[in-house]
Amino acid sequence: MGMVVQNIARADQAVIDGLARAGVATVHEAQGRKGMLASYMRPIYAGASVAGSAVTISAPPGDNWMLHVAIEQVREGDLLVLAPTSPCDNGYFGDLLATSARARGCRGLIIDAGVRDIRDLTAMGFPVWSKAVSAQGTVKETLGSVNVPIVCAGALIEAGDVVVADDDGVCVVMRAEAQEVLRAAEKRLANEEAKRKRLAAGELGLDIYDMRGALAATLTVTAIKLVS
Amino acid sequence: MGMVVQNIARADQAVIDGLARAGVATVHEAQGRKGMLASYMRPIYAGASVAGSAVTISAPPGDNWMLHVAIEQVREGDLLVLAPTSPCDNGYFGDLLATSARARGCRGLIIDAGVRDIRDLTAMGFPVWSKAVSAQGTVKETLGSVNVPIVCAGALIEAGDVVVADDDGVCVVMRAEAQEVLRAAEKRLANEEAKRKRLAAGELGLDIYDMRGALAATLTVTAIKLVS
Amino acid sequence: MGMVVQNIARADQAVIDGLARAGVATVHEAQGRKGMLASYMRPIYAGASVAGSAVTISAPPGDNWMLHVAIEQVREGDLLVLAPTSPCDNGYFGDLLATSARARGCRGLIIDAGVRDIRDLTAMGFPVWSKAVSAQGTVKETLGSVNVPIVCAGALIEAGDVVVADDDGVCVVMRAEAQEVLRAAEKRLANEEAKRKRLAAGELGLDIYDMRGALAATLTVTAIKLVS
Amino acid sequence: MGMVVQNIARADQAVIDGLARAGVATVHEAQGRKGMLASYMRPIYAGASVAGSAVTISAPPGDNWMLHVAIEQVREGDLLVLAPTSPCDNGYFGDLLATSARARGCRGLIIDAGVRDIRDLTAMGFPVWSKAVSAQGTVKETLGSVNVPIVCAGALIEAGDVVVADDDGVCVVMRAEAQEVLRAAEKRLANEEAKRKRLAAGELGLDIYDMRGALAATLTVTAIKLVS
Amino acid sequence: MGMVVQNIARADQAVIDGLARAGVATVHEAQGRKGMLASYMRPIYAGASVAGSAVTISAPPGDNWMLHVAIEQVREGDLLVLAPTSPCDNGYFGDLLATSARARGCRGLIIDAGVRDIRDLTAMGFPVWSKAVSAQGTVKETLGSVNVPIVCAGALIEAGDVVVADDDGVCVVMRAEAQEVLRAAEKRLANEEAKRKRLAAGELGLDIYDMRGALAATLTVTAIKLVS
Amino acid sequence: MGMVVQNIARADQAVIDGLARAGVATVHEAQGRKGMLASYMRPIYAGASVAGSAVTISAPPGDNWMLHVAIEQVREGDLLVLAPTSPCDNGYFGDLLATSARARGCRGLIIDAGVRDIRDLTAMGFPVWSKAVSAQGTVKETLGSVNVPIVCAGALIEAGDVVVADDDGVCVVMRAEAQEVLRAAEKRLANEEAKRKRLAAGELGLDIYDMRGALAATLTVTAIKLVS
Repeated sequence: MGMVVQNIARADQAVIDGLARAGVATVHEAQGRKGMLASYMRPIYAGASVAGSAVTISAPPGDNWMLHVAIEQVREGDLLVLAPTSPCDNGYFGDLLATSARARGCRGLIIDAGVRDIRDLTAMGFPVWSKAVSAQGTVKETLGSVNVPIVCAGALIEAGDVVVADDDGVCVVMRAEAQEVLRAAEKRLANEEAKRKRLAAGELGLDIYDMRGALAATLTVTAIKLVS
Repeated sequence: MGMVVQNIARADQAVIDGLARAGVATVHEAQGRKGMLASYMRPIYAGASVAGSAVTISAPPGDNWMLHVAIEQVREGDLLVLAPTSPCDNGYFGDLLATSARARGCRGLIIDAGVRDIRDLTAMGFPVWSKAVSAQGTVKETLGSVNVPIVCAGALIEAGDVVVADDDGVCVVMRAEAQEVLRAAEKRLANEEAKRKRLAAGELGLDIYDMRGALAATLTVTAIKLVS
Repeated sequence: MGMVVQNIARADQAVIDGLARAGVATVHEAQGRKGMLASYMRPIYAGASVAGSAVTISAPPGDNWMLHVAIEQVREGDLLVLAPTSPCDNGYFGDLLATSARARGCRGLIIDAGVRDIRDLTAMGFPVWSKAVSAQGTVKETLGSVNVPIVCAGALIEAGDVVVADDDGVCVVMRAEAQEVLRAAEKRLANEEAKRKRLAAGELGLDIYDMRGALAATLTVTAIKLVS
Repeated sequence: MGMVVQNIARADQAVIDGLARAGVATVHEAQGRKGMLASYMRPIYAGASVAGSAVTISAPPGDNWMLHVAIEQVREGDLLVLAPTSPCDNGYFGDLLATSARARGCRGLIIDAGVRDIRDLTAMGFPVWSKAVSAQGTVKETLGSVNVPIVCAGALIEAGDVVVADDDGVCVVMRAEAQEVLRAAEKRLANEEAKRKRLAAGELGLDIYDMRGALAATLTVTAIKLVS
Repeated sequence: MGMVVQNIARADQAVIDGLARAGVATVHEAQGRKGMLASYMRPIYAGASVAGSAVTISAPPGDNWMLHVAIEQVREGDLLVLAPTSPCDNGYFGDLLATSARARGCRGLIIDAGVRDIRDLTAMGFPVWSKAVSAQGTVKETLGSVNVPIVCAGALIEAGDVVVADDDGVCVVMRAEAQEVLRAAEKRLANEEAKRKRLAAGELGLDIYDMRGALAATLTVTAIKLVS
Repeated sequence: MGMVVQNIARADQAVIDGLARAGVATVHEAQGRKGMLASYMRPIYAGASVAGSAVTISAPPGDNWMLHVAIEQVREGDLLVLAPTSPCDNGYFGDLLATSARARGCRGLIIDAGVRDIRDLTAMGFPVWSKAVSAQGTVKETLGSVNVPIVCAGALIEAGDVVVADDDGVCVVMRAEAQEVLRAAEKRLANEEAKRKRLAAGELGLDIYDMRGALAATLTVTAIKLVS
């Protein structure tokens, strides 16, 4: 019952790169606080920050056959995104697959399962966000699908959606909304810069965001008289 | 139903700094193996080590309004300590709030929920111990309380208690006991130095702690004769 | 009811060192994808890579008495391997015990519980793979056993088995199979090197592993015609 | 940013009722082993078995306002299906909401969060499948959406999809596939009945499924000679 | 370092019994949505519903010595409430201890750890709310304390506080607030009865709670035109 | 690499039946508090209580082929005991396999994974202890082994060991120790009966177990003077 979809549509590369620069937290806010994958998705090393078009993979538990199939579909600037059909923490992916994926232009892997060869992947600078690190191997016996919609770590991802990942986690942006989300993200960044300066100077968020009125109505403030 | 308590009592700053130097494991032992927060509280980067007076925050799930309220109560040397009223891994806190908190003299954050902008916080050297890393944003719609007693990661913390945090986790010391705990901690440190030397020289704990007698009565020792 | 077994048999040191060089993922594959400990066993710092003969410890929850007993049994090249008799995340082990263990030639600790003094252990270069980091201390009141078979993080380990650990996790090799597993591991490494070159040159796994035939029979490939 | 979609399309009621009779395990197999929600979704009492059209709810953590909005959209034969926008185990739903939902013809609730008033719901015979049981209350302060696509316990559910739930868990069937899945399910049931008789008579699955050939090639069978 | 506090203050028995009748969900709401223990605390059988004065126990992991000490402090109408000093799922309590506790008038046990002899306890009608069911036994070697403040499943409980438990979980009411909470709970119950009738008659919560105005301002309602 | 071991040795049936009557908690204590499987192993219905000889199964994640192979090895009075080679909650077993297993004399299933058709299994009175309930199906594509030693839910089980299971969980008794454990269990039961009577009459464990002396030395007892 496997299926492979070829020639998927992708967002504009300049938009994708802009989203990478904005980062996960900003992109997530800019699209209305949606699209985050579960917080158990952690990077294998600190400091990586990427965005790419999703080549999606639906794979059986403990079987990495479809990763080989998916790599043939990768183009420069893509990310591999794998969800197992039932919960599994096996190490589906290691340095050989990374070598192959990188040769096709792949920028990284998002996997709601395990990954291995952490030291080699770190040395290569090939970033992975995963649910687990595990050397527990997989087989190549059962088919899955490539470039079908998947639910990965609680989020719906379709082939060609833009996936953004950094130290804060992983966020998906629908391909059709990528341009608009980038615009909103850039506006937020400009806006944040101004706020950062005021906050650094000691101004309070209570004043900047004009919260004192709403608080006054409902908050009890108690000043304790200290007697040392 | 929110409440903000002002002018909380704090321990002596020299005592607080002494507890920071002693470190979490020693402080925890020195006060009779109590006060540890749950082991899922992990630092966002390795090597940070702080102590401070707790400014406590009780906040609804997914709502960071009270962090803004709490920052107004922070004085030089304090730590923000947040517990949500029900389990939540949202990213309540990021680099803007850190900038604001630091401008008031805050030394770090202990949060039984999520944090974001990890890379910026690391670059700033603003340490955070949290249950999760998550870019999933919060709203500012429901009030909580500041400087009321909270249960954070399984430990009771009152405003003004001393919180000590390093790579081993987070420990709370009651304000009234801080002086005495520091004394006990310093005694342990001196004592450990002597033991460390004997152990490094190859002496066994069994002999140093005089355990052989108790063992002899109840332990069966079997020497296998090896036949290669 | 405690028991201590002395003079356990160990594998040949050259074989053990060979397994360390091969690494966890390769060793695990070489012995037929078996022997992995659960993926929650994580190193306290990145980059450590060891193998050693297991000195096994079965300890009550929250009681580290038997670690002192076990250290007397350690010889150059051994690893301490501890499983609590019921789930526990207490910090059984810290820098004093590490100092003592190292003085006996111990290369590291595998513990299905907690560890503390992370910063000191890292500075010493004493590697630990654990379920948790926790400063929560233990007592010395109840006996356990040393060098009996234990189940550690889901895997059966007997005294003298070879335990291999690196950034990918922890794997156990039965002593009697160590020589043969090393041979298989070295063959895999040689084989992988050739594959790595072909993959890096852009050749696909689908072709290298000759998978296209099997796929053709069962996989539906859909080429979408893109209309930008 | 809330949205409510009205007048959603539903599958034929006879098809829905047929899927309820077939049960979760059969329906799941009949559609190619897909559509299962995570296994942590458990019924509040044993023996309930329902199917219905999904009225979907996306709600903030700890806020049940949208349940009131959703109930207005319920028709005879529907199921309420709620996913929080971030993980939450609060009790969003109790006997008052159940009374209201039932008055509109609602057959039950699927909720990737908590539920309360278990005893009353059981007495009413109003079935709920949930991640948690918790009396921890919610507020009514932030909007969400009704009848938008949601990811609930790891599965994508669109408004009007057929949701089937019994003691084995919860499974979603896409509305467009419901008729065909029912046909396949009924075929399986007939087929199973024949197999059940043969198995009850002592015939082995190895023979019924004709597995011996494939096994013979790869399986080692060892007969131990017993010496009592 | 153990401590036993005798002669603790208790709330009025009529108030305690009133809180039992109100039930956990109502009591929790009546005191401002606070006091819930974590949702993993589940009853060993359905249908039990109790309230009692807390006799608190702080016990080491895997050691049930203090339960024997605590039972001497129990009076008619009390509940035993145990928190281990570090996470533990051992079965601290079984039918012998239940027989002893009941002979002193104990109404049940709340334990943030494990319990065993489930079948006997169910037959006796001795209710227990626990984190786990486990036959894994405990020792009697290390002291803890009785009637000191404890954190149990995330909630602070002091000796003599009123603990209410039913199928929805466990909630603590501070002794000093018990009377007032009961009054608020009874008011809620009366109020709910009226609402229940209106909801059963088909009236919507949107109208009863007067929510339509607030929704109209911010919610987009989309009516899809169905074309079957 | 699959292997099937035939003609395994079993304990005496009268001993096995005696262990079933003693129950899990007593058996576990009688053999020195060892042999418990993890507490997440729960029965699918309350009240079942069995013991049997283990027919062990090591199976790949999501693949139930070996269950069919194992059933051919079952004799009257056996229990099937399955451990997946990596963590998996799929429903490996349902009413068809139960029908087949029962026809061979099988008394139940212990599975460190998922089970389905709960309602049918309950109606049949076929008991199962599992990590999960899940209708998520499995395939029949990869071999495992039958009657090899396995680690199931943290415990080592060899083919022919006696497994005892009831509402308190699951415990394994080594075949060679079964006779002796039964003797110790029966002694405990007789002993408990006497204690139960004394405790029911109000005598305290502190006196029965003669604990007061040890306590007096180390415990501080504080009598609070109550001022209502």
